[in-house]
Amino acid sequence: MTSDPVRLGVAGLGRAFMLMVPTFDADPRVKLVAAAAPREESRAAFVRDYGGAAYETVEELCADPSVEAIYIATPHQMHVDHVLAAAQAGKHILVEKPLAISMEDAERMVRAADEAGVHLIVGPSHSFDPPVDLAARLIESGEFGQLRMIQALNYTDFLYRPRRPEELRTEEGGGVLFSQAIHQIDVVRRLAGGMAKNIYAMTGAWDPKRPTEGAFTALMSFETGCIANLTYSGYAHFDSDIWMNDVGELGQPKKAGAYGGARRALMNLNPDDEARLKTTRTFGSGTTIEASHNEHFGPVIALCDRADLKLTPDGIEVFGDTERHFIEAPFGPAPRRTVLDAVVDAVRNDTAPDQTGAWGLASLEVCHAILTSAAAGQPVDLQHQCRTKHEEPTE
Amino acid sequence: MTSDPVRLGVAGLGRAFMLMVPTFDADPRVKLVAAAAPREESRAAFVRDYGGAAYETVEELCADPSVEAIYIATPHQMHVDHVLAAAQAGKHILVEKPLAISMEDAERMVRAADEAGVHLIVGPSHSFDPPVDLAARLIESGEFGQLRMIQALNYTDFLYRPRRPEELRTEEGGGVLFSQAIHQIDVVRRLAGGMAKNIYAMTGAWDPKRPTEGAFTALMSFETGCIANLTYSGYAHFDSDIWMNDVGELGQPKKAGAYGGARRALMNLNPDDEARLKTTRTFGSGTTIEASHNEHFGPVIALCDRADLKLTPDGIEVFGDTERHFIEAPFGPAPRRTVLDAVVDAVRNDTAPDQTGAWGLASLEVCHAILTSAAAGQPVDLQHQCRTKHEEPTE
Ligand SMILES: NC(=O)c1ccc[n+]([C@@H]2O[C@H](COP(=O)([O-])OP(=O)(O)OC[C@H]3O[C@@H](n4cnc5c(N)ncnc54)[C@H](O)[C@@H]3O)[C@@H](O)[C@H]2O)c1
Ligand SMILES: NC(=O)c1ccc[n+]([C@@H]2O[C@H](COP(=O)([O-])OP(=O)(O)OC[C@H]3O[C@@H](n4cnc5c(N)ncnc54)[C@H](O)[C@@H]3O)[C@@H](O)[C@H]2O)c1
Repeated sequence: MTSDPVRLGVAGLGRAFMLMVPTFDADPRVKLVAAAAPREESRAAFVRDYGGAAYETVEELCADPSVEAIYIATPHQMHVDHVLAAAQAGKHILVEKPLAISMEDAERMVRAADEAGVHLIVGPSHSFDPPVDLAARLIESGEFGQLRMIQALNYTDFLYRPRRPEELRTEEGGGVLFSQAIHQIDVVRRLAGGMAKNIYAMTGAWDPKRPTEGAFTALMSFETGCIANLTYSGYAHFDSDIWMNDVGELGQPKKAGAYGGARRALMNLNPDDEARLKTTRTFGSGTTIEASHNEHFGPVIALCDRADLKLTPDGIEVFGDTERHFIEAPFGPAPRRTVLDAVVDAVRNDTAPDQTGAWGLASLEVCHAILTSAAAGQPVDLQHQCRTKHEEPTE
Repeated sequence: MTSDPVRLGVAGLGRAFMLMVPTFDADPRVKLVAAAAPREESRAAFVRDYGGAAYETVEELCADPSVEAIYIATPHQMHVDHVLAAAQAGKHILVEKPLAISMEDAERMVRAADEAGVHLIVGPSHSFDPPVDLAARLIESGEFGQLRMIQALNYTDFLYRPRRPEELRTEEGGGVLFSQAIHQIDVVRRLAGGMAKNIYAMTGAWDPKRPTEGAFTALMSFETGCIANLTYSGYAHFDSDIWMNDVGELGQPKKAGAYGGARRALMNLNPDDEARLKTTRTFGSGTTIEASHNEHFGPVIALCDRADLKLTPDGIEVFGDTERHFIEAPFGPAPRRTVLDAVVDAVRNDTAPDQTGAWGLASLEVCHAILTSAAAGQPVDLQHQCRTKHEEPTE
């Protein structure tokens, strides 16, 4: 045991990493000691900012003996190779959501981490957001009686943010299912204890210029009897952040007058220009986001017997039988601190969070089930679910 | 043809009638000439306020030759007898939602009106609300491209308003399905053109003291390809009017500090006391509601190719590709004027609204399908749907 900072290596210095920079920079419990990135500018920026080693390949990064754990923030389709490489090198792993694109890959990854005896954590995901954590603990406490229903919805401009071409092809993990539904599923599963039973869903791929799912709506049921309604649209029209105190997903106050910005920025760009535009939002070139609230993934209401819990970026509004009150989920000192809590706890105390590889695989199963159900017009039974640590089955 | 006021008889002077009083009183196109009510106080109040005839039975009301059309506002289970009586007497009919409890009764009622050559209108229902009408016309215009998805949700205190005992028994038409889902279904069907194809749903009956459905969540698909998500909770916790500019269902500004009032008023009442409490909210004894906005049935978002339309009590917020703007649906001079537009148009111009008997039967089918689907865990195909007048099938 040591309380030395966890020595982290980073695979992929793109948008996802950039969003984690404020978190890493604010937290003395971790230290970025190495990175892997194909782009020279990114490597130079990393060396400049962190002074560690910057490799061209993940394999070299994995071979670096100073690295204890690797944060894998490469595109979805690379997660499998990079997780396998890290596990084989005996490194603990924090891998970006989704764990993988295919269930087979996800299973291999979970097995590889098990066999190597390393922790595999899937995150950040919005199930780590402090209000979600607070709500989960309130529900588990039983104070408000049984959890009966969850309604989650989110309307964003996801589909019109600058994309790599494969991010618009469903079979390669593109569209809102693998990148966005996965968050909502994680949040809902966290609140409901994890064990989803089945799901019925409809999807929409309505823009022929971006021919992947941009929206879905789904009903799930859980083994506890809880039911859930998940709805998402990434078509950049209605913005549900107006129902979240005008706070954006990343905890930033929304700018007035920004409406339509995503679509406007894309106008008249070809796919190459668009992919280039995406790299302007990555490490070394992007602007950072100023969060002053917790992150969130849209309105979520959890209906219990004696209260509805409504998540906000700052905590939980409790709508009880005869009174309502607010319970704060404090923000800071930096966003996403709970993700590093999980990493430090795993590496230093050998304690796994809820969001393990098995958890990420279970959430990924739900993404696939949404596509399957929508195609078949039938509910789909789920076979790979797992429980949160705290939840005991109640009936 | 005449422009004389339509001479209306009213069957049932309870809560529903009371909610229509401001509408009747403000509209010179109709005149209340007679009523039927079992309670002496109600009859006396009617004679005092309107000077017409007040009968003990609907049969006597139907026999009154001065009556041209009858507004049937008796409890659900009586709609069938009262509609049949009115039709046999050759009177046009405005019947409260739901048209009936059973599909068989609904079919008999539609047939009876057809055979008698009288108009049968089901309303008021929130599909008559001016913002719904405006949204339906905007969608039909094609200005925003194809309608793809509708999300409707509503969180109220329905289950804790004072009730007659049968209003808490599902088989007798109790619970949120027959009284509340019917509104949401009407609204969604109106926007989507009416022809629902199938539905998958889950329901909740979570309060053993009020053992009927208090909540449901459902996914529908329409023959046009449009999908819809309907969610309702009447469990008096979260109140979605906070997402409707703090305007209540009846167009009234919500009072601060009223939270929990419904449950508090019921505390320690037995069923008899509760039924008595309900009659304090009826004609002759109740307080009237001061509407200053259009009525509404909770947040509704209609997603089209080039804009999301969000209904508010005052109109439509249009979230377009690059700009958002607001289109007003003017309120007044009194609430529910559009319901009387339909009655006058039917009686004076022989023109039926969308909300005919066949329409009401189609919406009732969806209520039953929600119960059936929830019990079976399977989607249910719909067989009795009908189109709005304007909508042509688009694909
Ligand atoms: N949790 C979140 O908030 C969040 C936000 C954005 C992205 N993500 C996730 O992060 C992952 C990456 O997405 P992104 O939007 O950051 O994409 P991105 O394209 O911005 O970043 C990916 C980075 O990986 C680098 N890369 C490519 N091949 C590599 C290799 N072989 N070795 C090392 N680096 C390599 C690229 O150069 C790029 O910088 C995805 O799985 C996505 O789901 C998560
Ligand atoms: N559209 C709306 O906003 C709205 C609101 C409330 C109720 N409703 C509908 O109105 C109907 C009545 O519900 P309510 O809440 O007003 O109930 P209620 O009990 O307040 O009123 C029903 C009235 O019918 C009377 N009645 C009973 N038997 C009768 C008979 N044989 N002949 C004549 N009158 C008789 C009762 O005395 C009572 O006054 C229901 O179908 C309900 O769905 C609609």
